[in-house]
Amino acid sequence: MPINSKKTVVPKGFLFSAVEAAVKKPGRKDLALIYSEHEAKMAGMFTTNSVKAAPVKLDMGLIRQGKGRAIIVNSGNANACTGRQGMKDAVEMCRLVANHMGINDDYVYVCSTGVIGTPMPMARIRPIIGDLVAKLGSASINDVAAAIMTTDTFSKIIVKKKRIGGRMITVTGICKGAGMIQPNMATMLSFVLTDAAIESKALGEALRQAVNRSFNRITIDGDMSTNDTVLIMANGAAGNEVIKKGSDEYEAFSGMLQRLTYELSELIVRDGEGATKFVEVEIKNARTEKEAEKGAFAIANSLLVKTAIYGNDANWGRLMAALGYSGIMLKEEKTDITINGLKVVKGGIATGVDVQANERLKEKKIKIIVDLHLGEGCVKVLTCDLTENYVQINAEYRT
Amino acid sequence: MPINSKKTVVPKGFLFSAVEAAVKKPGRKDLALIYSEHEAKMAGMFTTNSVKAAPVKLDMGLIRQGKGRAIIVNSGNANACTGRQGMKDAVEMCRLVANHMGINDDYVYVCSTGVIGTPMPMARIRPIIGDLVAKLGSASINDVAAAIMTTDTFSKIIVKKKRIGGRMITVTGICKGAGMIQPNMATMLSFVLTDAAIESKALGEALRQAVNRSFNRITIDGDMSTNDTVLIMANGAAGNEVIKKGSDEYEAFSGMLQRLTYELSELIVRDGEGATKFVEVEIKNARTEKEAEKGAFAIANSLLVKTAIYGNDANWGRLMAALGYSGIMLKEEKTDITINGLKVVKGGIATGVDVQANERLKEKKIKIIVDLHLGEGCVKVLTCDLTENYVQINAEYRT
Repeated sequence: MPINSKKTVVPKGFLFSAVEAAVKKPGRKDLALIYSEHEAKMAGMFTTNSVKAAPVKLDMGLIRQGKGRAIIVNSGNANACTGRQGMKDAVEMCRLVANHMGINDDYVYVCSTGVIGTPMPMARIRPIIGDLVAKLGSASINDVAAAIMTTDTFSKIIVKKKRIGGRMITVTGICKGAGMIQPNMATMLSFVLTDAAIESKALGEALRQAVNRSFNRITIDGDMSTNDTVLIMANGAAGNEVIKKGSDEYEAFSGMLQRLTYELSELIVRDGEGATKFVEVEIKNARTEKEAEKGAFAIANSLLVKTAIYGNDANWGRLMAALGYSGIMLKEEKTDITINGLKVVKGGIATGVDVQANERLKEKKIKIIVDLHLGEGCVKVLTCDLTENYVQINAEYRT
Repeated sequence: MPINSKKTVVPKGFLFSAVEAAVKKPGRKDLALIYSEHEAKMAGMFTTNSVKAAPVKLDMGLIRQGKGRAIIVNSGNANACTGRQGMKDAVEMCRLVANHMGINDDYVYVCSTGVIGTPMPMARIRPIIGDLVAKLGSASINDVAAAIMTTDTFSKIIVKKKRIGGRMITVTGICKGAGMIQPNMATMLSFVLTDAAIESKALGEALRQAVNRSFNRITIDGDMSTNDTVLIMANGAAGNEVIKKGSDEYEAFSGMLQRLTYELSELIVRDGEGATKFVEVEIKNARTEKEAEKGAFAIANSLLVKTAIYGNDANWGRLMAALGYSGIMLKEEKTDITINGLKVVKGGIATGVDVQANERLKEKKIKIIVDLHLGEGCVKVLTCDLTENYVQINAEYRT
């Protein structure tokens, strides 16, 4: 669950800052800086939306060097669909940080989240970057996690510690995102910081594995954003021997990272816009893992399923209908469905326990298991219910 | 708009009946019969959901003969996911009608709509079929249109008349559907009746063309049902020379049928569950028609787009994001977007008229045009906004 204490453990060698730039409106810190005292190895994953925000395009180029020192991030404006000016603004944000710090432009990454299509308010951002840099060390990672929130109702931080290669390694991850969540990584920003020493290639591989089984398997509303970004920085300050791919140390690090991103992605779903319930959809024994994933997302994205869960209605026919249109192989007479431990469908037909299942749906955590009995493809997808409140939040977002 | 007058024009040679079988609960007529005094040519189109209701499976077999006399239809229960018993019940419904009428079993089609996964209440349906048949002629097509409603708020009837081949031809269509609407023809039943004389093959082809550009281009919530069915009966009672494919008469008939199904599909969208606005999404100049359709459906199904329209928020960034993840070819810098006549995006960036566009969104009919400037693919898709009321309706549907 969310950690809001000021004492959040952070890896050695990272400093933070957060200021109010009134990007969208005044009243909160909305511009933050993450800084590694030493050059860090870096890796990243980005939205697969063909409409990409300027900062995403910029970072996708920068990340090829596999290293960096700083990330500047704002909420309130996504700097997406802002044309050539948007790219100029993203570049300027990086350059201003670099100039104030006396580091190379290429060492600064930029991320933005918020409204699409509005030019960045550079007149307010530009003059405050000196202040942002000067204040490095005065803020905690909690302040950064709070500064990047948009419709989030709580800030999201997960910490993992583990002794690897004789040294205590810390990984601290923050993320934001509560709507427009769908693979891959919709309106989601996540920054993962570690003091591990690790090879660039190993870092990238570990991040890919972790993201594909966490952030890429959650959905709130099926909409994919233009800005999704996960960046990881590993500055080596723990002093461990450099972790190489294929080693036991790599496995230990990779496992820790997977648990961390999984728990972060759980926090996003728990904070799903307007959600009252946390829903895990598991497809078992599909023909392939890919089909399992397709089926699970069809259920997890079905408005009829999500509203039925909200209404405590074990309307499993909607699950069957969603599976049916997902395009995966399905044999009705082989299909079993379980809702919170209660088998509601056996061999494609009702077991007659819908009333009891309605009761189970009153729980806050819902677990749906569909066993297709066709192969060995198994996948879990996380989602939430759909409520009037989701509609309200998204009908009024810009106003 | 909906026609509720008892004087709806119907083609010659059709009789109707409707009774209360209390399929789901008592209080309304929920079982209806459509009967042609003469053998009618018939054609049909059915859901592509791989989970198909028993009546759909049965009708898909029957329709191969290309003819029939009667359609029995109930609301309140979809007879889907009901296993072998469901098929037995569907067959029995047809047989009972056939027996009471003294016609061949194969001449009776059956359609069901309502809750999935609950066995048909045959104990209530079985004894009333005699009454249903006996009352043929006592009901109007309006009574049938009312009997097939589920969450519909008004009954849906369209009539077209045209002189073809020297005779006045009448086509009367009814349909139901207000949610779970997505291609192809989700939770949608439509029955189209005509007194035209037409070849079987020509009738099937005309129906396919009409449905593909009407019912298959509307979406309320992206969910596709297990029961969608469109059946057309042409009994030849108008006495025209038999219409053959490729003739001028065929073109005239086909055009009339297309207008009729398009207007029926408009009625469904106007009655979208909880909807306050009717939305037409037009994609112009996509690389291909298929890409235009994919892009239009991505926008029409986006929860973020639909809630923004509900909230009078010209948040065109959500349109761009939806196009971006639709997977179609898109060049931001070439893309123009118009909302109710106001160009909000030119060459991928804002024109600065969002405030005026918000005003335009207060109209009840919204027309979004996206010009991709890439090719010649053009498609219109009809949808509606997403409101708290949709969530309420679908959270409480079974209770």
